Amino acid sequence: MVHRGGMVIVSNRAPVTFSRSESGERTYSRGAGGLVTALNAVSRRAEGALWIASAASEEDVRVAREPGVCEIEDLRIVLVEHDPSAYDLMYNHLANPLLWFVQHGLYDLPYAPELGGETLRAWEEGYLPTNRNFARATAEALSGLESPVVLLHDYHLYMVPELLREEVGEEPLISFFVHIPWPEPGLWRVLPSYIREGVLRSLLRSDIVAFHTRRYARNFMASAAELLGAEVDPRGGAVRWGGREVWVRSYPISIDPAEFEEAAESPEVLREEEYVRNLPGALLVRVDRADLSKNVVRGFRAYGRMLELHPEMRGRVTFLAQVQPSRGDIPEYAAYAEAIRRSAGEVNEAFGTPSWRPVELSMQDNFPRSVAAYKNYDALLVNAVRDGMNLVAKEAAVVNRKDGVLILSENAGAHEELKDNALSVNPFDLDDQAAAIHRALTMPAAERARRARALREAVLSNTIEDWVAAQMHDMAARRKAFS
Amino acid sequence: MVHRGGMVIVSNRAPVTFSRSESGERTYSRGAGGLVTALNAVSRRAEGALWIASAASEEDVRVAREPGVCEIEDLRIVLVEHDPSAYDLMYNHLANPLLWFVQHGLYDLPYAPELGGETLRAWEEGYLPTNRNFARATAEALSGLESPVVLLHDYHLYMVPELLREEVGEEPLISFFVHIPWPEPGLWRVLPSYIREGVLRSLLRSDIVAFHTRRYARNFMASAAELLGAEVDPRGGAVRWGGREVWVRSYPISIDPAEFEEAAESPEVLREEEYVRNLPGALLVRVDRADLSKNVVRGFRAYGRMLELHPEMRGRVTFLAQVQPSRGDIPEYAAYAEAIRRSAGEVNEAFGTPSWRPVELSMQDNFPRSVAAYKNYDALLVNAVRDGMNLVAKEAAVVNRKDGVLILSENAGAHEELKDNALSVNPFDLDDQAAAIHRALTMPAAERARRARALREAVLSNTIEDWVAAQMHDMAARRKAFS
Repeated sequence: MVHRGGMVIVSNRAPVTFSRSESGERTYSRGAGGLVTALNAVSRRAEGALWIASAASEEDVRVAREPGVCEIEDLRIVLVEHDPSAYDLMYNHLANPLLWFVQHGLYDLPYAPELGGETLRAWEEGYLPTNRNFARATAEALSGLESPVVLLHDYHLYMVPELLREEVGEEPLISFFVHIPWPEPGLWRVLPSYIREGVLRSLLRSDIVAFHTRRYARNFMASAAELLGAEVDPRGGAVRWGGREVWVRSYPISIDPAEFEEAAESPEVLREEEYVRNLPGALLVRVDRADLSKNVVRGFRAYGRMLELHPEMRGRVTFLAQVQPSRGDIPEYAAYAEAIRRSAGEVNEAFGTPSWRPVELSMQDNFPRSVAAYKNYDALLVNAVRDGMNLVAKEAAVVNRKDGVLILSENAGAHEELKDNALSVNPFDLDDQAAAIHRALTMPAAERARRARALREAVLSNTIEDWVAAQMHDMAARRKAFS
Repeated sequence: MVHRGGMVIVSNRAPVTFSRSESGERTYSRGAGGLVTALNAVSRRAEGALWIASAASEEDVRVAREPGVCEIEDLRIVLVEHDPSAYDLMYNHLANPLLWFVQHGLYDLPYAPELGGETLRAWEEGYLPTNRNFARATAEALSGLESPVVLLHDYHLYMVPELLREEVGEEPLISFFVHIPWPEPGLWRVLPSYIREGVLRSLLRSDIVAFHTRRYARNFMASAAELLGAEVDPRGGAVRWGGREVWVRSYPISIDPAEFEEAAESPEVLREEEYVRNLPGALLVRVDRADLSKNVVRGFRAYGRMLELHPEMRGRVTFLAQVQPSRGDIPEYAAYAEAIRRSAGEVNEAFGTPSWRPVELSMQDNFPRSVAAYKNYDALLVNAVRDGMNLVAKEAAVVNRKDGVLILSENAGAHEELKDNALSVNPFDLDDQAAAIHRALTMPAAERARRARALREAVLSNTIEDWVAAQMHDMAARRKAFS
């Protein structure tokens, strides 16, 4: 079913970034990354959808200042200009350190965070104004549309539902998708009440609030009940609040398999495969951002533990870790990147020989090499402390050619879909992870093949198109139920 | 109602500690502390109750090895001897770092804990054997008793219900009281499944599982549902699991007001009052163990923030912090004690004058001075990150003579009962705490008096006797319902 009314997608990140060539012409590049890929699929599905996002580059700002809609290939885009200091407060003081840390449970609570007036300022002078900009741009885009649908995405935009309702009332159907974990009320209590209650009240002005997993949906309903006193029907997936009923749903996000199958045959990837295949022994792989939630340090330590317990594996495996730098200007991230380097070095120091380096750590963004690694791993380690979904697990399962085994944290969103054919691990337990790595590397071929096939089928049975279709279906049902 | 059958109380800590005088005679001292006081009240109520606890001192071990029950004043005691290394594993490797940290949410999860084989060893060679010792001693004590009731206490004994049922079957009524916070399932997931599921399965062999607050009871039911798949009736306070129905209840623990009113008039306290009353200006007080959950560092920093924002308060208030050393052999605690000293020093450095020291930090156990401080505070700061109950808030409210204002963390168990007349604070928000300190110290006399009176009444309306009575009542009801 294609949505026939007007559809507006809103996300902080835009699907394209504009720049100016040396000759002064406007050029653009299309963004990559899981969320943008997913929203591209939504945009394709909903013909003529408008996509509203933040202006990021200087040229983006020029585009934002031009009237009307910018049409690029199959996309119709409106860029929103924010005051740079407001954007900085929203992005670098509120969304990325605070909300990201709370929702992933990353704070060392006896010491951090130290909230206060600065938090309030980031909220009032950063988060609220940027969200208001989005709400206004959306309201403008909606004018004249019939049965409009607004799809709001992720933790940068929590206040948009409320601010948008103030502008346009109850007519548009609002769906809000949260792409990161929604923790239980106890973690939300870390935040000041104006944030934790403000966010909840705003989200409950939506018609549908959506998550990647049933667990997050359940936690959201528990939060609404406990922090706001809302009436909740956990089985039915509904929250009643302020005289309205909000549907709470889970749609596990996925990938476009064709995109990865195509990338897997690209010349860049084939070139990188030469490097990857020349690494000695079996291939253990991880591909992650250098984020505190990804558990890179414990991954190396667990691998070291495995080499300690199973000396016969020494020289017979290489751990290729593709870890992209991330948010290096936040002190906690700089310290974590350092801890990653140190812990990789410790394993190499303890077990390396002149002819064998146990860990090959690359802290650069190298997509072709990551895909080359996806194709060739014998075991893939995804041991996140917490992770909204983790698309690496899905991408890799589709293109792997070696019947590679997936080792998967029970706290990754992907665990709900993939657990039956992955080796589940507790991300805090080094010996559990060490045992899983060993088991993966010594698993009989028949079991490897069976698991790999089942994983691939699990991913192919719920692609990004299915993810979009399921949401469209529920939005139509919602419209029908409440019209 | 006095329980007429045989009642057995089991706790790790004993109500008395035995020692040997220089002349070789056996002597003993009665323990203090909230839990022991509470269980003394249970013991008084249930005439002839037997109290089983761990032998701690050398002389305790001798007592444990003598046959029969040891009668001391109004107490009937059986001490259990543990293998010292098993006890050390239970106490110093499993209960106090791991369970305490998880249940209070104190881990810096990107880095700690690093669980593994050592955890399994502490569980199998420490926690299980000591719990088995308790179960056996309890089974022995039960033999021949009619309608026996077993009251198990706290996080050192989680496996006793299961091990005891193995020995004696379904006949005894088992009540298990957890005195520390019960967090949501997400935090329990930090622990290996053999612990988190093992603990839950065992607790669900009890008839009643009890907590200090409704929030903990709710979290327990959510844990049973999510981690075990048990059927839960949150409104009715019941979990159905393994063909049995378990009642889940909350009974906010309290104090014996007479004990504190008496202590308040003791010569030692009167002497300490001279010191306390000579401190310059209004008196802000905190009394805590140096535990990572108590939030001592943020307390000093919030006080410093208040002095920064309200220069007129400088020289007109002293912050007396009685912080008892605790668990100094655990590295995290040693580091925290150092952070406490440093942060107090920073405030004194920034604002102190030759005639005024803003913070008086005493890191010694000085009960008379603490009671003297209780009597004389103008404001009491209880800003715990998380706290099972926090009896300081209740003790102090009863003996304070100054219409002192209670500043209370919304994450302390006491908050459910006392919030209406305390100033609630978010323990992570320095400015919120700074504002509450300022408001407390500048509050009009009439409001202070009204709040102080209401707090005192709230405590007096639910004393330790009421706490015991409520449990006895429910145990009788349970017996009736299932007989």
